[in-house]
Amino acid sequence: MLYYLFEYLEKHYQIPGAGLFQYISFRAASAILLSLLISTIYGKRIIRFLTRQQVGETIRDLGLEGQVEKAGTPTMGGVIIILATLIPVLLFAKLDNIYIILLIVTTLWMGTIGFIDDYIKKFKKDKEGLKGRFKVMGQIGLGLIVGLTLYFHPKVTVRQELPQTQQEVVVTDGSSQKQYSYEVKSTKTTIPFVKENEFDYAELITWISPELKKYAWVVFILVSIFIITAVSNGANLTDGIDGLAAGSSAIIALTLGIFAWVSGNIIFSDYLNIMYIPRVEEITIYITAFVGALIGFLWYNAYPAQVFMGDTGSLTIGGIIAVIAIAVRKEWLIPVLCGIFLAENLSVVMQVSWFKYTKKKYGEGRRIFKMSPLHHHYQKSGYHESKIVTRFWIIGILLAIVSIVTLKIR
Amino acid sequence: MLYYLFEYLEKHYQIPGAGLFQYISFRAASAILLSLLISTIYGKRIIRFLTRQQVGETIRDLGLEGQVEKAGTPTMGGVIIILATLIPVLLFAKLDNIYIILLIVTTLWMGTIGFIDDYIKKFKKDKEGLKGRFKVMGQIGLGLIVGLTLYFHPKVTVRQELPQTQQEVVVTDGSSQKQYSYEVKSTKTTIPFVKENEFDYAELITWISPELKKYAWVVFILVSIFIITAVSNGANLTDGIDGLAAGSSAIIALTLGIFAWVSGNIIFSDYLNIMYIPRVEEITIYITAFVGALIGFLWYNAYPAQVFMGDTGSLTIGGIIAVIAIAVRKEWLIPVLCGIFLAENLSVVMQVSWFKYTKKKYGEGRRIFKMSPLHHHYQKSGYHESKIVTRFWIIGILLAIVSIVTLKIR
Repeated sequence: MLYYLFEYLEKHYQIPGAGLFQYISFRAASAILLSLLISTIYGKRIIRFLTRQQVGETIRDLGLEGQVEKAGTPTMGGVIIILATLIPVLLFAKLDNIYIILLIVTTLWMGTIGFIDDYIKKFKKDKEGLKGRFKVMGQIGLGLIVGLTLYFHPKVTVRQELPQTQQEVVVTDGSSQKQYSYEVKSTKTTIPFVKENEFDYAELITWISPELKKYAWVVFILVSIFIITAVSNGANLTDGIDGLAAGSSAIIALTLGIFAWVSGNIIFSDYLNIMYIPRVEEITIYITAFVGALIGFLWYNAYPAQVFMGDTGSLTIGGIIAVIAIAVRKEWLIPVLCGIFLAENLSVVMQVSWFKYTKKKYGEGRRIFKMSPLHHHYQKSGYHESKIVTRFWIIGILLAIVSIVTLKIR
Repeated sequence: MLYYLFEYLEKHYQIPGAGLFQYISFRAASAILLSLLISTIYGKRIIRFLTRQQVGETIRDLGLEGQVEKAGTPTMGGVIIILATLIPVLLFAKLDNIYIILLIVTTLWMGTIGFIDDYIKKFKKDKEGLKGRFKVMGQIGLGLIVGLTLYFHPKVTVRQELPQTQQEVVVTDGSSQKQYSYEVKSTKTTIPFVKENEFDYAELITWISPELKKYAWVVFILVSIFIITAVSNGANLTDGIDGLAAGSSAIIALTLGIFAWVSGNIIFSDYLNIMYIPRVEEITIYITAFVGALIGFLWYNAYPAQVFMGDTGSLTIGGIIAVIAIAVRKEWLIPVLCGIFLAENLSVVMQVSWFKYTKKKYGEGRRIFKMSPLHHHYQKSGYHESKIVTRFWIIGILLAIVSIVTLKIR
């Protein structure tokens, strides 16, 4: 909101310094500093409040060392992340930007689902929480909203170069200018290792018949639903030991922030030969606030944790990451960039299916991992919780670097 | 070295892909990936070797919980950092670049001093290690080398804009070109909050008499010595609990890496209005290798640590950070950027002087902190080692953001 205030002040009163608000870099820096302050300073109060409400998580008994100490640690700490993200965004971002609107909706939507889930677990003493059915319905619902908006909203475009023959001089307001590129609605996305790194979802059906192009939105929406569901479940499973989900997500978000900033800057995207997506740079503000919130949350969530994020946190984090990845059209980097989430997800799928399969075949269920999700496997193997978390972070950093590098190779 | 190889291949055989080596971004990415691999994969072997040599650190008995477990953990792990930095640098950097040469000298110089110190502590069973006198002499020696080189080497310059009246057309090789800027030897550095953020060391003495300008090099060398001594001692003191020095240094180095990359790129430095320092962008390669080495070292050094860096590591890290900061002319950001080192340094100075003062005055020494350096104060206060480290990292991130922001405010 301050953006509009300072824009007004700048225009009508030429107040010195007000012009700074035009710069993405200045607003991004302000957003991250404010979110760090909110999450560390107000975080403490929120934790005290949660503790008073007795919202301690009933810990699944895993027979792991040091587990008993954790009983009584309050959950639902995700509200710290949500508040420390949304407040700076409301202050520093352009609120009429379609991407910002979509991300605010995502945050509130997933936050609500997570909150209901945590609430049922805690106060209804129902360990299952929200029925899986409802969770999935919520994720599909968000996928529909995001997919439809990104597909049909007129301001969601990419800018493409015109073929040489079509580059023509356009006269606007008496001054003539040569036009090299044009904005276009498109289902194009980025895929590493293919020619020009670009891929159009429409091609998935147009090879059958070119007439099917009008149904490209169906493909796009299905993809959106899949990505959102997969990433939010991944984040949800990753959130099992102190600091793991928050730290890994901060690394992922920071990388997406670089993509958003570069993709929305005409100079940099051209220099680095990355798809230019007008207006997407505003997401940078959202991401810096989000990263600040995650890091600030870590202040309390680092081993030994004083608070857990709960589903309020993990589902929201996953949703935000998925939507940003789709918006900056880098969703097919997710298997690499969110490799930690993927590995946690796969470990559960593999463990459960192998157990079921062997149970049917040998009458006795067998396991691949000592325990799933993956981080518990290492805990059972005798690694210290804190060590596992730092090592997962390091792998996360490595994956982030690889994701960035793949964009340069073609 | 590969740079020259591929340059040769590119020139004579036009091998596809060889041209990639011209790009800083490609070489930087290769350097960080290689250093991560070296430090994590070969790190394990080096640790095994060090353990066999019985180079476990004799732990100062601080009466802290969990301390006994640490006896037997090998020290001198700094060699992992040194190797994982130098190998990628030798492969991917331009070895005739003066900044790269200076940094390699710094690494070997400080590494040797640290190694001798660790060696005496370990094998001579002399807990004091290298006499403080020799350590300081080593640091002063390096300060002299760095100061003299940066002052007198013809390739160490900044590029300044010419006043409008002096912009003239220069004819080279038959083609004429207007010259807007020129390279100049200069003792200018960056100081936040002053006009244009620039400050010339020569001004420190020329206000007395303009004739003193010829002695500006003395001022510059004194500053170099001071910075190098202060930062390497700071890093040395910070290295007291698992992962603290390595993690904090990685954050600092990454920030300096951004400065180096931007300062050496004529487009970005102009766009961001930062001093343009030709050739300094090559430091980016050094820094990415260094950051990778630190993060890889953390793989083993994170709580609970399997290896300590020793003075071999901490003195070297401090020296590298100091020299990079001076080279990119951002040394006066160090009090903010290296705020953790500063706080640790100050806590010791304050503790010792207050103790001496009160001892003289009251006959009984009093303390400000429960223990110094600062991190031990928090340990004594009951915080878990792992928590202290993560929180110091978070403060380090905050300080890094503040350092970057100050450059935009004037």
